[in-house]
Amino acid sequence: MKWPEKVTIKEVGPRDGLQNEKSFISTEDKINWINQLSVSGLKYIEITSFVNPKWIPALADALEVANGIQRVEGVTYAALVPNQKGLERAIEANIDEIAVFMSASETHNQKNINKSIQDTIPILREVVQDSLSAGKTVRGYVSTVFGCPYEDSVDIDSVLWISEALFDMGISELSLGDTIGVANPKQVQKLLEMLLRRFPPGKLAMHFHDTRGTALANILASLEMGITNFDSAVAGLGGCPYAPGASGNLATDDLAYMLDGMDIKTGVDQAKLFLAAKFIQEKLDRLLPSHNLQARLTK
Amino acid sequence: MKWPEKVTIKEVGPRDGLQNEKSFISTEDKINWINQLSVSGLKYIEITSFVNPKWIPALADALEVANGIQRVEGVTYAALVPNQKGLERAIEANIDEIAVFMSASETHNQKNINKSIQDTIPILREVVQDSLSAGKTVRGYVSTVFGCPYEDSVDIDSVLWISEALFDMGISELSLGDTIGVANPKQVQKLLEMLLRRFPPGKLAMHFHDTRGTALANILASLEMGITNFDSAVAGLGGCPYAPGASGNLATDDLAYMLDGMDIKTGVDQAKLFLAAKFIQEKLDRLLPSHNLQARLTK
Repeated sequence: MKWPEKVTIKEVGPRDGLQNEKSFISTEDKINWINQLSVSGLKYIEITSFVNPKWIPALADALEVANGIQRVEGVTYAALVPNQKGLERAIEANIDEIAVFMSASETHNQKNINKSIQDTIPILREVVQDSLSAGKTVRGYVSTVFGCPYEDSVDIDSVLWISEALFDMGISELSLGDTIGVANPKQVQKLLEMLLRRFPPGKLAMHFHDTRGTALANILASLEMGITNFDSAVAGLGGCPYAPGASGNLATDDLAYMLDGMDIKTGVDQAKLFLAAKFIQEKLDRLLPSHNLQARLTK
Repeated sequence: MKWPEKVTIKEVGPRDGLQNEKSFISTEDKINWINQLSVSGLKYIEITSFVNPKWIPALADALEVANGIQRVEGVTYAALVPNQKGLERAIEANIDEIAVFMSASETHNQKNINKSIQDTIPILREVVQDSLSAGKTVRGYVSTVFGCPYEDSVDIDSVLWISEALFDMGISELSLGDTIGVANPKQVQKLLEMLLRRFPPGKLAMHFHDTRGTALANILASLEMGITNFDSAVAGLGGCPYAPGASGNLATDDLAYMLDGMDIKTGVDQAKLFLAAKFIQEKLDRLLPSHNLQARLTK
């Protein structure tokens, strides 16, 4: 077993973690929370989404949040952008990196973006080009890579050609999402074997959800394939708020715990991460899925 | 990455899972539940503990449970035994395999067994000898192998000489316990490298708790070291009932989910396991930590 010496954790809690929350976290609390994350040693934070507030009311204050936080040198502040309109607002907010997204499953793409995969491509191409023209780097997300809530299985070939298409547009990194948290290490190995024939490991990131408890095992499989970029959300945010036991994103605190124990450098201070996890759990007023948060609180 | 083709899951829920529960599960419910586990495809179930009921009131009905269940051919029914008195009751109950236990940490052994490690050895030796004379196989547990609640760190050398001592007594398998759920894959690899120089992989079992979310990653590391025996508890039982978020044993349902997905044979039927997990959650009347149980229930 060989693992990288150093890993970059990309915090997606303020965006992927909050976007499905029914309770609105106040702009002030969001800013306070992101400021805590900024000084935790994290080098990358996706702070919000410039999606139409009609669709994601939880992040309706994207611009205020982006303008309100204290930016820390060395930290990249990213935001999700669905289209040209979103990009304009993100540029206005002086976001460092733009994230675009689509799905590897036709049905999920239709439900999520209201367009076919084929029709999504030219829209993203324009957003990527304009982002690059504005001097921004761009990150691409492919979701439902390991399974889809509406289709039986997701074709690896779809993932491959969509990845190719996104890199052709000019994205600098591709994040492969296990949106519904069904992946296992063998699936991860299989997919990465295919992708690593075409793209270097440093251009790929893995984005796991812990719905079935396999997220850290999938991280371990990815580490063994040479991957060094991982998305996660502090406190394990991102589950459906109406499903008490169903986990969301892999918890940043769980990821940092395992990597620290394995002597893989992340730069993240677990104690500071704990405070940020505790803060957002108090604001949401329910137990969040992070194992380490609960273990520390009940110690 | 190489993994074994086949794995044996050793279900410890009725013993390790229930022993710390404050609410008493009725003898009838225990029997009903173990009968469900017996037809789930599991080949090994630790059904109870013949410890003084003064110390473990939750398992005070050990004999009635052992006599009440419907034994299924091909399933090994095991029970924990602390001393000669316990062994006599276990033999009376016609238990197939006897499990003895001690700790790799001096302080934990003192608190748990009320004796030093040195003083525990001769007692276990007698129990093992008498078990063998009675025609029983014996399994040994070493707990706090990766960390102790009372000591800063646990010495690998302690684990090694205790393992040696237990095999010398005549145990046929050794289960290495991460009692407080702190282990990471690197630690697992390091320990197993040492142990596998002395003992074949088929003689070792790993017993993980999921307190920090690392259990399945530790399983993956163990699989890569050639280990094929794993302990787990259906529904993730075994956490402290007063610490709602703190996970207990690795959930059998989570383990079976991952292994199935990796095409590693376990013989276990996930749908039947789900019913057994749901049954015990209803009896305990609180959310249990199994990810797959909650994911299936909220689907």
